[in-house]
Amino acid sequence: MVRVGVIGLGYWGPNLVRNLAANGRCGRIVICDRNPARLELIGGRFPGLDRTTCCQDLINDPEIDALVIATEVLSHYPLAKTALLAGKHVFVEKPFASSVAEAEELVELGGRSGLVTMVGHTFLYSPPVLKTKEIIDSGELGDIQFLTSTRVNLGLHQKDVSVVWDLAPHDFSMLFYWLGREPDFIRAFGSDFVLEGIPDVAFIDLGFPGGVIANVQLSWLSPSKLRKTVIVGSRKMLVYDDTEPDEKIKIYDKRVDVIEPMTFGEYQLSYRSGDILSPKLDSFEPLAAEMEDFLRCVETGDTPRSSGYGGLAVVKALEKADRSLSESIWRRD
Amino acid sequence: MVRVGVIGLGYWGPNLVRNLAANGRCGRIVICDRNPARLELIGGRFPGLDRTTCCQDLINDPEIDALVIATEVLSHYPLAKTALLAGKHVFVEKPFASSVAEAEELVELGGRSGLVTMVGHTFLYSPPVLKTKEIIDSGELGDIQFLTSTRVNLGLHQKDVSVVWDLAPHDFSMLFYWLGREPDFIRAFGSDFVLEGIPDVAFIDLGFPGGVIANVQLSWLSPSKLRKTVIVGSRKMLVYDDTEPDEKIKIYDKRVDVIEPMTFGEYQLSYRSGDILSPKLDSFEPLAAEMEDFLRCVETGDTPRSSGYGGLAVVKALEKADRSLSESIWRRD
Amino acid sequence: MVRVGVIGLGYWGPNLVRNLAANGRCGRIVICDRNPARLELIGGRFPGLDRTTCCQDLINDPEIDALVIATEVLSHYPLAKTALLAGKHVFVEKPFASSVAEAEELVELGGRSGLVTMVGHTFLYSPPVLKTKEIIDSGELGDIQFLTSTRVNLGLHQKDVSVVWDLAPHDFSMLFYWLGREPDFIRAFGSDFVLEGIPDVAFIDLGFPGGVIANVQLSWLSPSKLRKTVIVGSRKMLVYDDTEPDEKIKIYDKRVDVIEPMTFGEYQLSYRSGDILSPKLDSFEPLAAEMEDFLRCVETGDTPRSSGYGGLAVVKALEKADRSLSESIWRRD
Amino acid sequence: MVRVGVIGLGYWGPNLVRNLAANGRCGRIVICDRNPARLELIGGRFPGLDRTTCCQDLINDPEIDALVIATEVLSHYPLAKTALLAGKHVFVEKPFASSVAEAEELVELGGRSGLVTMVGHTFLYSPPVLKTKEIIDSGELGDIQFLTSTRVNLGLHQKDVSVVWDLAPHDFSMLFYWLGREPDFIRAFGSDFVLEGIPDVAFIDLGFPGGVIANVQLSWLSPSKLRKTVIVGSRKMLVYDDTEPDEKIKIYDKRVDVIEPMTFGEYQLSYRSGDILSPKLDSFEPLAAEMEDFLRCVETGDTPRSSGYGGLAVVKALEKADRSLSESIWRRD
Repeated sequence: MVRVGVIGLGYWGPNLVRNLAANGRCGRIVICDRNPARLELIGGRFPGLDRTTCCQDLINDPEIDALVIATEVLSHYPLAKTALLAGKHVFVEKPFASSVAEAEELVELGGRSGLVTMVGHTFLYSPPVLKTKEIIDSGELGDIQFLTSTRVNLGLHQKDVSVVWDLAPHDFSMLFYWLGREPDFIRAFGSDFVLEGIPDVAFIDLGFPGGVIANVQLSWLSPSKLRKTVIVGSRKMLVYDDTEPDEKIKIYDKRVDVIEPMTFGEYQLSYRSGDILSPKLDSFEPLAAEMEDFLRCVETGDTPRSSGYGGLAVVKALEKADRSLSESIWRRD
Repeated sequence: MVRVGVIGLGYWGPNLVRNLAANGRCGRIVICDRNPARLELIGGRFPGLDRTTCCQDLINDPEIDALVIATEVLSHYPLAKTALLAGKHVFVEKPFASSVAEAEELVELGGRSGLVTMVGHTFLYSPPVLKTKEIIDSGELGDIQFLTSTRVNLGLHQKDVSVVWDLAPHDFSMLFYWLGREPDFIRAFGSDFVLEGIPDVAFIDLGFPGGVIANVQLSWLSPSKLRKTVIVGSRKMLVYDDTEPDEKIKIYDKRVDVIEPMTFGEYQLSYRSGDILSPKLDSFEPLAAEMEDFLRCVETGDTPRSSGYGGLAVVKALEKADRSLSESIWRRD
Repeated sequence: MVRVGVIGLGYWGPNLVRNLAANGRCGRIVICDRNPARLELIGGRFPGLDRTTCCQDLINDPEIDALVIATEVLSHYPLAKTALLAGKHVFVEKPFASSVAEAEELVELGGRSGLVTMVGHTFLYSPPVLKTKEIIDSGELGDIQFLTSTRVNLGLHQKDVSVVWDLAPHDFSMLFYWLGREPDFIRAFGSDFVLEGIPDVAFIDLGFPGGVIANVQLSWLSPSKLRKTVIVGSRKMLVYDDTEPDEKIKIYDKRVDVIEPMTFGEYQLSYRSGDILSPKLDSFEPLAAEMEDFLRCVETGDTPRSSGYGGLAVVKALEKADRSLSESIWRRD
Repeated sequence: MVRVGVIGLGYWGPNLVRNLAANGRCGRIVICDRNPARLELIGGRFPGLDRTTCCQDLINDPEIDALVIATEVLSHYPLAKTALLAGKHVFVEKPFASSVAEAEELVELGGRSGLVTMVGHTFLYSPPVLKTKEIIDSGELGDIQFLTSTRVNLGLHQKDVSVVWDLAPHDFSMLFYWLGREPDFIRAFGSDFVLEGIPDVAFIDLGFPGGVIANVQLSWLSPSKLRKTVIVGSRKMLVYDDTEPDEKIKIYDKRVDVIEPMTFGEYQLSYRSGDILSPKLDSFEPLAAEMEDFLRCVETGDTPRSSGYGGLAVVKALEKADRSLSESIWRRD
């Protein structure tokens, strides 16, 4: 039974606590937030748990095996480092750290001391992303040629990091997981419409070893979520639309006997060349699977699917994309 | 009554002929194709029309006022130039010409001789594109911030031009028409998966005066059409999906009272912040409106919506994007 | 080569003419409309065809083998009867006739004289309906249990017949074709909202030999078309939505391992138990296939898919449903 | 502060407990299930609550003000009656009771003793249903003419009641709430495909005072949920599709200038006559609003939106529909 401390009770913290509480591998949970009111509010929802406003209590507590860190990005590195030095396994919310140097140090520290370092790239535990991985690996799509990804969001603007650091961790973690490799080439273009110096729209080009290319469109400025990833292979195409209720994944088959349309009506009506299959997906909650992977790896010493090493790869790409973006920001004058 | 010769009876030619034949402004139609079999086949569908396999016949014919050129791109310039020099108005299928130099010469020639030069950017006559223009110009969206456009196609591969010259004329002509300006900045990234040297995937970044940015994703490699343009303004967002049967345009309103979702289910279910309106569109055939504009301008001397000058702007952007693409093509090794 | 006269140039007539003209089996076409202005307008679109305002000319013309009758329902019977007596094959627009007695006489006349009688149940020639038939006959759905059909229309109100006579021919012809049998039981419920005595909403229950049941919802009063048919079998379900551009048919597989949802979010999100397949459909125009079937049967003596006998079965059902509806009309007071 | 006992911890019970626990009006919760294992399992999720396996304990407990009954239908009446006689307010899951006689007695008992009787018609607390009520009452749709409703379900077959008693409570409660009246006329048609004597498909016709009519299609036999309600008024139409993630409600405007389609392509493409609006819906959990209404009415003596009287109206309609269905069941032979 793993004994876990959870630091940070903002949006993700309480959801992680809920899933830890429901997991049979978890023997004890202590929750922690600097803000006493927040601690009390969330504590009220989980009556049986110990509480503290001081994260050092958790780090010093010998009855704690592992820490779940769901605080702001800037505190990920100091908290995780202190925890690892104190011999605790760590789970850190995405993005893993705020620089490559920080992320490398954490991975190195974890590796040296035989402790689990894991990053909360939740999408790596979501049913459509797993099904997509399975389909790609099965060879059903043929050779992957290119991917496009659109992630535009409900206008929840961040004040201190660019849209790349906020949203790209999702796309990067999925792309690298599906392809099993990191990009050689990254460049970005974008603008800062709302706050000067905080890019809120970014278009990112990526080139991977072996020739796969990708394009990622990110923005905070939209009144509606769009979340669509297209994966084109030499045999089939997969479209993953996370806003669809029931048909999140569709696989489009290629068929060669496309007949030339002869009238405007036919022209408008023929949109594809083969069957479309929407596979049934499992319906578990990603956070439950994520916490299960963490607790299991703490118990067994295995490497989690969303390991610190994967977190480092994402941070490397974020740093490159962010630097490229800040150099190419498009000015309004 | 305008007397028109139509050169080239491939895909677009017969559709242009059909719409010319149905237009009351059109007094005579002569159709022309080098291939006698094709000329006979299409001629059989339009029994009353004169025919010739020699385009020079049309250019020499004093009973012809205007030429509609629907041949391969490389012949656009020589045919249009000869026609203009012979005092004929010209309509040229998209793209207008195969280089900026050619396009500039045609525009200059047309301007000097007071003849209409028009390009077949059909989308500028399609109901959803016109409605979008109307909505943008009304200020309903607020200040336009960025646009994204996806145009992936049914695997109809061209052998001699890149995907940029084949597909980008659609997106560029729409973007420039909506925004009323040309881009200062264009760069592209992509690859050539099927035929070395013929790029078949391209991601294009555009920066416009005044700060608007855009990203265009193009490909021939897909088994299904995707045609989606997103226009984000400071007040509302417009999504134009040309594969939708009935709700091609949706306008998403912004509302600020977004409540933080507290459970996974709510998180999944809240995808927008305001009302969505799908305006009723007119339902005419774009080619009919395009031919009407051409014939009307021949009669009146007006400048058509899709003028040679607009065609030149598109060719400038195509040339830049294509050059940038060929410099950044991503290699598989 | 079949020589055809077409009587009635309203909505369907010109579309039938266009498809006859494009069919290689058709050697001559004479078009006929009482209204000289209409005849001239439509004739102008098909320059090579003979014209007359008098249908008797067609019936007397020895150079005519077959008549296509696209006039109002009430004239179907007298025109078709006269034509059959004159030894012409007949194609009659739906519904076949305005009473069972009329329909029976036409079928009998055609049978006795060895002439083709065919009814324009166009849906029997449309790709989604044919694919549905193929899927049902393959046994893929298992035993058919029930069907529901919704057909609500764009508010194009008829003045002299009920919504049953106007819209149910579509649903009845499809249902009987798919199931290969006629219903034992028909009853209807509805109301007449716009014109007293002309029912404009109808709900129809049908019971078939072997136990299959069906429910059909019809109306003219809607501002948007809804056209959805659901076929539930013991193994799978097929949904046919004719307003979908690209996925008109979806086949839902059954899977038994439904997990009880434990949260509201999951409850909302799990809508199905297995894969969904949307088969690629052929993309020909139904009227072309319909005319091809007619001309082929005239040449060969075969029975067309949409034979007079099938037209009689539909008229029988229309008569029963209409009588039941008029007895159960719901009054507003 | 209201002190509540919850009897029955199957599917709905735990969800009701969760929402009671989160509601500030609720001072104490005691949970009850006959099955000790189930009691322990659910009790483990809500650590602070008292537990009992004997419902009589709750009825006798003077520290309990109100009972929430989420057991099988047959026990609703005896439990609710005993509770009312013991002076407790009662909330009963849908359907209210298993006969009109039972429901009438409970309403009468509640009325006489001044206690709240409420039924768990959860849809009356769901955002799309409330928005629909608001739109109908505003007159925006004009005079309501007819409604159709489809509710086919994931193949979760009941063993002891017909599909009418299982699914129609949802549709009936919504219809009666929206229209503000009960039907004069009810008849049903259907079949029992899986278990003889337990109808699993039903088509129900309803006629209301004032002339509104409705048709409800119900089934358990489908591998996918379909949940669509169409409300046609004299001015606009509202479509409520509960399986849509984001556009559950669409309002279709009528516009009269429908142009006759002249080609097959146009014919296929014109599906509506006016704008479509999808209003933003609130995003609260219906059960939270339902429990809030119950607790508030217990405190204030107000009548809840989903009162016992409304529950009685639904039971009356269920009884009629079920009787009509059992008389008209369609036999397979």
